[in-house]
Parts: sequence; structure tokens; C-alpha cells
Amino acid sequence: MGKLEVTLGIDIGGTNTKLGFVDREGNMLAEASVPTHAEQPAPFFIAHLHQAIQMLWRKLPVEVDLKGIGMGAPNANYYRGTVEKPPNLDWGDETPLVAMVRKHYPVPIVITNDANAAALGEMKYGVAQTMKNFIMITLGTGLGSGIVVNGDLVYGHDGFAGELGHTLVNVNGRYCGCGRRGCLETYVSATGIRRTVYKLLADYIEDSEMRQVSFDDLSAEMITEAALRGDKIALEAFEYTSRILAMKLADAVAHTSPEAIILFGGLTRAGESLFGPTKRYLEGFLMNIYKGKVKLLRSGIMDKNVAVLGASALIWNELDKIKSTEKKATV
Amino acid sequence: MGKLEVTLGIDIGGTNTKLGFVDREGNMLAEASVPTHAEQPAPFFIAHLHQAIQMLWRKLPVEVDLKGIGMGAPNANYYRGTVEKPPNLDWGDETPLVAMVRKHYPVPIVITNDANAAALGEMKYGVAQTMKNFIMITLGTGLGSGIVVNGDLVYGHDGFAGELGHTLVNVNGRYCGCGRRGCLETYVSATGIRRTVYKLLADYIEDSEMRQVSFDDLSAEMITEAALRGDKIALEAFEYTSRILAMKLADAVAHTSPEAIILFGGLTRAGESLFGPTKRYLEGFLMNIYKGKVKLLRSGIMDKNVAVLGASALIWNELDKIKSTEKKATV
Repeated sequence: MGKLEVTLGIDIGGTNTKLGFVDREGNMLAEASVPTHAEQPAPFFIAHLHQAIQMLWRKLPVEVDLKGIGMGAPNANYYRGTVEKPPNLDWGDETPLVAMVRKHYPVPIVITNDANAAALGEMKYGVAQTMKNFIMITLGTGLGSGIVVNGDLVYGHDGFAGELGHTLVNVNGRYCGCGRRGCLETYVSATGIRRTVYKLLADYIEDSEMRQVSFDDLSAEMITEAALRGDKIALEAFEYTSRILAMKLADAVAHTSPEAIILFGGLTRAGESLFGPTKRYLEGFLMNIYKGKVKLLRSGIMDKNVAVLGASALIWNELDKIKSTEKKATV
Repeated sequence: MGKLEVTLGIDIGGTNTKLGFVDREGNMLAEASVPTHAEQPAPFFIAHLHQAIQMLWRKLPVEVDLKGIGMGAPNANYYRGTVEKPPNLDWGDETPLVAMVRKHYPVPIVITNDANAAALGEMKYGVAQTMKNFIMITLGTGLGSGIVVNGDLVYGHDGFAGELGHTLVNVNGRYCGCGRRGCLETYVSATGIRRTVYKLLADYIEDSEMRQVSFDDLSAEMITEAALRGDKIALEAFEYTSRILAMKLADAVAHTSPEAIILFGGLTRAGESLFGPTKRYLEGFLMNIYKGKVKLLRSGIMDKNVAVLGASALIWNELDKIKSTEKKATV
């Protein structure tokens, strides 16, 4: 008694890994960010992560009882506790991440991909708190998604459900890091909109502040800011991006008929430049039985560390499930 | 005691309505088919249906206890018990079908769309008996679908989930009965492949037995038989159909990551002409983490009355749910 029950949320990104101790109400008691060292093998990462957790633990203002650990990671397999062929980490074909972390921390540990973790965060602390059916779209370097049906994340048969970033816009379209062509994320993501700006600079003759910027220097933030200043190429880039996003969201609605689609990530800072045309095109593309029914919302936890909160929500959920199973078993 | 417990399965189609009494093991005790009279209002249909049920009841070889009624119908809303804006029935905006049938038969009644009913039939009596995650595709006049996640049908927020026939292949493509353009079912369905044959007859100069047939006379069966005889246009039509089907199935896999996709309906009688290229293209279109994992199967209940069996499975499922809730309440 007396110790505060907490979970540890960890978000493993290609560049940085974020972690934080979170209580049951979603209060972040302490948080940190450390380099992932993506070019190093997994055991190196685990050793550094362990160190970072220990340092953060010492910073906690109260004594805590660590109930479990939730992790979001690219290509994480929820069922197997593994990370498989992650595109941005040099970890090889399969890393038994849960088993490796459990050696240091013998508590319940669950992993999922980062967009699924964000969906759980949104359901527990954000705009989806009353929703049972919604789709979370994270717009970062790529496009991630988490699909919630009947109040549960959809993992599918193999644990890899919800890869809307790799649905096909055009099988002869842009080359994708996944080895195929025309995936949604080659158009709709921070990288995708940069590619679109370059296409538009080639297609049109309009002047644009972005004509002075190299592809490598161009960032999604620059495009967002140019759009907010009324730059025609930037505005057209958001129009183009929104139309393709809306087309594939209409397909997603025909699959699971969500109450809302929630957008998260840097691109959403463009506000109406993104939401305006996406809403308009979406209504146009939706089949009549869905028209006027699907909300397009901005994440409610944009300014907090959503991935860490989501990873923490993942393990709190799991702990609740364990508890309810134990209850049933004792009845 | 002594009376056999049965449910009544009803499948409402644009042309005919099929009904049958089914026991808990899936045995069809008696079945019938009556005209739907799609041009008449709903109360007329209900009166005729009531008559047909009474006639069928008298034909039953044993005394039965009717536990419930399951119905499959176009644009059926599972949550509300209504049929809303059905494309092929002149029933208006909203018909409270469950309430209307319950006036005659005061038992538990559930409705869903016909493809959902087929998915349940497959799960209870067909090739999906051990599966928790699969997608059912029914290829008829249109393309219907039922998505199963974690052992449950996905109904979504509004009861209309699983309309893969209206995902978008090409927003400037073929006109669809739903009022939009380029929907999957305008390419992949009995009607879709007829349209494709006519496109190919226009594009190519190859001789074909189908050059003597008018569009109105051309049937999917004819195309299937022509393909089986090696007609080049017919084979190319299946190739074209399969490629588009595979492209959208790859998207569907990226949503819910099913163990299998099950095809049902007349077009599947083409066998390898359909399954061969669909499997080949699907493997090509799938993202690497899904490759080699998703089975493409033919329905296991093709030769039985799947829609009626499925509608019956729907209500047996519901009755089991009611029972388990009652059990919980008495613990």
C-alpha cells in the first residue's frame, strides 16, 4: 500500500525512443526521450533502454509500483511479442522484444504498432472516449492507422491489421519503401506531400516560395506554412493530398463503417487547408448510406505525448482484461 | 418437450424470397421460394411472406418450436431492424421489417444484409468453422461482403459495415447503380464481367463465340462456359476481373488482416479461370508482411441454400447470446 500504481509507456521510433511513467488517470509522472540508434542491433537498444528506464525511475516524485509495460513499435506483432522486418531499424527479420524487456522487468508487457497505440490513447484520453467504432490515421513520415471495431483494436489473424498506408492508390504510381508502387503513404504523409509539391512545381508555372528549396531541404512544415500564407502550389498540394486521402478513407468506411476518422500528426497543423478539402471530397466519395454520418476529427491529444500515453493505455487495457479473467475464474 | 427446436431463415432478394426451417445442426427441414414482387410496397410483401411461412409450416414432417427468425435483405440495418433505401425493392426510405414480421411471429427476430448472412453460414456450416478472422465475398448481380473480426461480424457504427462492392476502383470509371462511378461491383460481379466482355470485344479483334450475343442476352454463365471452352475473350475477361478483384482484396487485407477470403456465387463456378489469376495477382499486390498468409477459398456451402442457412445461423447466434447473458445475470 502507499505506492502509486503506474505503467511504463514506450514509443520506439526510427530516430528517437520516448518513454514515460503514466498513472491510471493518464497523468504522465516523468518522461524522457533517448536516441534509438537504429543502425545498432536490438540487444544494444535494449541495454540503452534499460539504462534510460532506470534513470527516469530515479526522477519519479513518488514511490511507484510498476504494473506493466506497453510499447509501440514499427511492425510490432501484438500476438507474438515480436518486431518483424521493421523498415527503419536494423534489427533483422525478427526481434523477440517482449521477452528481451521482460528479462529486466518481469511484469506484463504488450506491444503493438505505433498507430494502434495512438488509437488506444485517443480512446482512453482523447476525442474517442465514447466511441466503439473509429479509425485513427497518423500522418508522419509515413501513414499509420489503427482500426477500432466494437471497442477493440483490430489485430486480425496475424497481428498486422490496419496498414491503410499501404492500400493501393495506383498500382503504377509512386515507388514505396515497402517495395511496391502507389501505396497511400507515398501520397498522403509528410514525405508524400513533399513529393506532391515537386510534381506540382513541374506541372504548373505558378510562382511559389518553394521553388527556391531543394527536395532534401523541403519539409512538410514549410509546405504547411506556405499554405497558411496562401502559396498556390502549397494549397494545391493540400488539395491533391486531401482528395487521395478522402478516396481511400471512403473505402475504409465501406469496410468498417466507423463513427469517426481521427487524424493525427504534423500535417493536421495545416488545419482547414487539410480538413476542408478532405471533408468535401470524402462526402463526395462516400456511398449514399454513409453520407453525412462519418465525423472527420483532429486528434484530441495532439499536444501531449500521444504515443507514450497510447502505449500506456495499451497495457492498462491488458491489465484490466487479466483482472476480469481472474474474476471470472474465481466466480 | 418433444417438439424440435427450429429457426426460420429468410433471404429476401430482388426477384425471389427464399425461406426454410432449420434445426440447430443446420438441417433444412423444409424450404420454399416465392416471388418478392419488388414493385409492390412492403406491407404487400409481408402479407405474402406470412402466407408462405404458414404453407411451409404445414409441410414440416415433425412438430416444431419456432425459437426465432433470421433474415437477410439488401440494405438491412442490423441495429435498427430496418431496411433502408434498398436499390432493388420499391419499399421507400425505411421499412421497419423486424417490427412488421414480429406482429405475426412474436419471437426474437434479427436481420442483416445477405452477404453478412452468408458469412455466418460459412462460419457455422462451411469452410470458416475454425476461423476468427475472414472476409466473405458474394459474387451475384452485385458484389456483397461480410467481414468477420475476432469471431464476430463487423456491423460498424451504423449497422452498414462491409460494403466492399462499393469501394472505388476508379473514380472516373464505370457508372454504378449506387449513383457513383468506378465501384468494385461494376467490374467484379455477374454484371461486371458482362460489361468487361463488351469492353474487350470492342478493344480486341479476336474471334469469340460471344460476338453473336447481345448485351441483354449475355449471361455470366455463358462467359464462364466460354472460358471453360478456351474462348480467348472470355479468358481475358476473367483475367481482367481477377486483377481488379485482387487489387481491392489486397486493400481489404491491409484493413483487417484475415486468415482467408472466401468467394461465393455463380462466377466461382469458373474455377481456375477465376481463382488462378486472382491468387496470382493477390500475392503480387499484397504488402510483404501479408504475402503467403491469406487463403483464397471457395465457399463450402455453395450447393446448399447458403443465404437461408446463413439467416438461420444469424438467429441461432443471437439466441446463444441471449442465453449466455441470461446465464451471467443469474450467476
